[in-house]
Amino acid sequence: MSKIVIAKAHTNIALVKYWGKKDPKLMLPQNGSISLTLDHFYTETSVQFSTHASEDQITFNDTQLSPVKAQRIVKFLDLIRAKSGQSARAIVKTRNHVPTSAGLASSASGFAALAAAGSRAAGLKLSLTDLSRLARRGSGSATRSIFGGFVEWHAGEDDLSSYAEPLQDPVDWDIQMIAVVLKATKKPISSTAGMQRVVATSPYYPAWVQTANRDLIAMRQAIADRDLTAVGTLAETNAMRMHALNLSAQPAFNYFTAETLTTINAVQDLRAQGINCYYTLDAGPNVKIICASKDTKAITTALQRHFRADQLIIAQPGPGISITEA
Amino acid sequence: MSKIVIAKAHTNIALVKYWGKKDPKLMLPQNGSISLTLDHFYTETSVQFSTHASEDQITFNDTQLSPVKAQRIVKFLDLIRAKSGQSARAIVKTRNHVPTSAGLASSASGFAALAAAGSRAAGLKLSLTDLSRLARRGSGSATRSIFGGFVEWHAGEDDLSSYAEPLQDPVDWDIQMIAVVLKATKKPISSTAGMQRVVATSPYYPAWVQTANRDLIAMRQAIADRDLTAVGTLAETNAMRMHALNLSAQPAFNYFTAETLTTINAVQDLRAQGINCYYTLDAGPNVKIICASKDTKAITTALQRHFRADQLIIAQPGPGISITEA
Repeated sequence: MSKIVIAKAHTNIALVKYWGKKDPKLMLPQNGSISLTLDHFYTETSVQFSTHASEDQITFNDTQLSPVKAQRIVKFLDLIRAKSGQSARAIVKTRNHVPTSAGLASSASGFAALAAAGSRAAGLKLSLTDLSRLARRGSGSATRSIFGGFVEWHAGEDDLSSYAEPLQDPVDWDIQMIAVVLKATKKPISSTAGMQRVVATSPYYPAWVQTANRDLIAMRQAIADRDLTAVGTLAETNAMRMHALNLSAQPAFNYFTAETLTTINAVQDLRAQGINCYYTLDAGPNVKIICASKDTKAITTALQRHFRADQLIIAQPGPGISITEA
Repeated sequence: MSKIVIAKAHTNIALVKYWGKKDPKLMLPQNGSISLTLDHFYTETSVQFSTHASEDQITFNDTQLSPVKAQRIVKFLDLIRAKSGQSARAIVKTRNHVPTSAGLASSASGFAALAAAGSRAAGLKLSLTDLSRLARRGSGSATRSIFGGFVEWHAGEDDLSSYAEPLQDPVDWDIQMIAVVLKATKKPISSTAGMQRVVATSPYYPAWVQTANRDLIAMRQAIADRDLTAVGTLAETNAMRMHALNLSAQPAFNYFTAETLTTINAVQDLRAQGINCYYTLDAGPNVKIICASKDTKAITTALQRHFRADQLIIAQPGPGISITEA
C-alpha cells in the first residue's frame, strides 16, 4: 500500500483560448493560451496505490465510476505508472466542488488534482513545471490549473516545451469573474470532437492561430498594465473568435443557448450604460463575466431580471495546486 | 408628366452570400454570390416623373415617407436622373408583399422594382443586364432580383463588370424554401454597418472571400446536377461562415435570437431523422429552410411544435422582373 496523497486544484478560465490540438497523443495545442485560476471552483482528489486492488477504483462524488466512464482516468493512471515504475492499481476518490452540472471546466481542476496526487502517491516528486506537463496529458486546460492567478500555457513543440507557468502578476488588483450558471443542456459536441472538427474543416483556422498568437502578446501586456478594459476587450474578442470557428466548421455547430444570448445581450447593455464588464464562453452555454468588484452589484442586479440569484457565482482569482500526504 | 410605369420584383435568398463591399460607392462586392428568387415575396412599385412636383414623393405601403426615410430612395432617383437626363421630380408608390416585419430581404425586391420602373419612366430602355447594374447601386442583393430562378451576381471590378445573370437552370426540379418568420427584434446592427465592421476588423475575412469563391464553383455544379443535398449543404455551410464573420468582428455581433437557435436545432434534428433539409440565415433572425416539397409536411409539422402555422411560409422559385406601362 502506498501512502494516501490528497491534492486540491482550482479551475481556470482562459482569457486567450486553447482550441485545437497539433498533437492529440501528446496533447500539444496549436496555440498558447492565458487563463485566470478561480477560487470558487475546485476538485479534491486522493490517490493510493494498492497491491490488494485488482483494478483501478475511481470514486467520483461518492459514486464509483463504471469501467467505461473510468477509461480516461485509467489511461492517465497508466501514464503515471509508466513514468514511476509503480505497478499497483490505484484507489482514487475525487470530489468536484462546482455547482452541479455547471460545466465549468471541471476537467481542468480534475486532471490537475489527479496529476498531483497520483504522481506523488506513485513515488514521484515532480516540479510544478513537470506537474503541468503531466496534467496536460489528461486534459489540455489542466496544464494551467497547476498554478494560481494569471497563467500562460506555452504551446511548445514537444512534451518538454509544452507547459504552463504563472505570469508575474500577484493579482492584487481588482479583477474577478461572475459565472452565470445556465440551464444544463446536452452538449451538441464534446470539446475534443469539436476542436478536432474545427481544425479539420474550418477555413478560418490558420487565421485563428495567428490572431491567438497576437492576442497572447497583447494580453501579457494588458495584465502587466493591470488594465481591466484591455484584458476584458481582448478576452471577449478572443472568445467570440473561438466560437466563430465552430460556426465555420462543416457541419457547423455552436454551444449557445437562448440563455447564453440573453446573458451576452445583458453584458452589452450594461457596457452601453458605462459598466466596465466583458463576457467569455467556453465549450458550453455558461457565460463568465469579467469585471471589477465595485461593479458586482450593478451587474448581478441587472442579471437577476433574467436569472435566479443562485445562478450567479462571484469568483475571485484563486491559488495553485496544494498537495498533502495523509 | 412622364408615363406611369409599374414594376414587380421578387425577393431572393442567397445560397452563396454577399457580405462585404470592395467599393461602397459603386456597390461592388468582395465576392460573387448565387441566389434563388422566390415567388412568395415581392414588391410592386410605380414611378411617374412630374414637373408639377417640387420634390420626390415616396409612398410606402400607403404612407408617405419622411425626408429622412426617403433619403436613400431620392439618392437612387438622382442616379436615374443623371443617367437619363430626366430632370423632374418623381412620384413613387411602392408596396411590399411580404409579411409585416418579416425582414425578408425587402431591399432586394424594393430596389429591383424601383430601378425597373424608375428607369423606364425616365425614358431609359435598359437591358436586363443594365437593370441589374442599376439596381446594384440601390442595394447589393437587388442586383440579383432582376432575374428569376437561380441567379449569379458576378463581383466584377467596376460598374460594367458587376452584374447578375440567371444560371442556365429552369428550376423545374423539386426545390423550395420554407421561411420561418420569427418575432421581429431590433437589429443589433444594419447589414451595411455590419459588413463594414467585418471587412475592417475580422481576421477571418480574407479566408471568407477565398471560401466564397470556391463555394461559387461548387454551387454552380450542384445546381447543374440538381443535387438538393449538395445545394443545401453548401448553402448552410456558407451561411454559417458568413455569420461566423460577425462573431469574429470587433466588437463581435450576431443576428441570432433564441428562436433562431430553436429553428436551427429543429432542422438538425429533422436531418438526423433522415429528412433532407438545410438552413440559411441573412442579416436577421429569420431562418429559411431549403428542402423538397415532398418533405414540406414533415418539416412544418415538426416546426409547429415551436411556432404558429402562419409563421411558416412555403416559397417556390419565383420569376424575374416584370414591367408594365399604365
